[in-house]
Amino acid sequence: MVQSQRSHCPIACILDLIGDRWTLLVIRDMMFFGKQRFEEFLESPEGISTNILTNRLKSLEDLGFIAKQPYGNHSRRMNYQLTEKGKSLRPVLMTMIDWGLKHIPATMVPEADSD
Amino acid sequence: MVQSQRSHCPIACILDLIGDRWTLLVIRDMMFFGKQRFEEFLESPEGISTNILTNRLKSLEDLGFIAKQPYGNHSRRMNYQLTEKGKSLRPVLMTMIDWGLKHIPATMVPEADSD
Repeated sequence: MVQSQRSHCPIACILDLIGDRWTLLVIRDMMFFGKQRFEEFLESPEGISTNILTNRLKSLEDLGFIAKQPYGNHSRRMNYQLTEKGKSLRPVLMTMIDWGLKHIPATMVPEADSD
Repeated sequence: MVQSQRSHCPIACILDLIGDRWTLLVIRDMMFFGKQRFEEFLESPEGISTNILTNRLKSLEDLGFIAKQPYGNHSRRMNYQLTEKGKSLRPVLMTMIDWGLKHIPATMVPEADSD
């Protein structure tokens, strides 16, 4: 068993990685809305704070779900993209979308940007 | 939009309901291991504490995912079971199991009790 794992259960282990209220939303923004920059994530309607966003981006990078690279002429400005591992979460998010649309009132997928 | 929702996004909304490290594990225990009693949940390998378990059971009941009823001669002893809404989460947990088994080392589904 890997050090930080609470058990061998695949559900417990995925929650250890991404089981909080914000992490999957950052992945959602990249996967379905094509967001790549810090400022773009801040614009999402749930209102993630800069310190939580910084923390989650770092954590997602450490875990290999996303990769960052400098962009433009500003070498300190970073562009974030999903790795193959990050993209592999698509079925998990898709079943969450299906469930949410079916069982939670007033949920919807934006028409213009949805996948 | 329902009062407690952060946005209309179905992913954000499901995370508002069950996006923490413990809630889905209680549902897992009921769904795949047939657990029904407080003591049974405490025995799970992740080591949930009594106060977190009490909190999550109450919350899951308030949200309509589980229902409780007294059992045996002890009217204060409760038996917890998934409602139809709770059972409807099965596809979400199944895709998490699939993902975990494929992408997280040292995860496994117990042979005897798995579904």
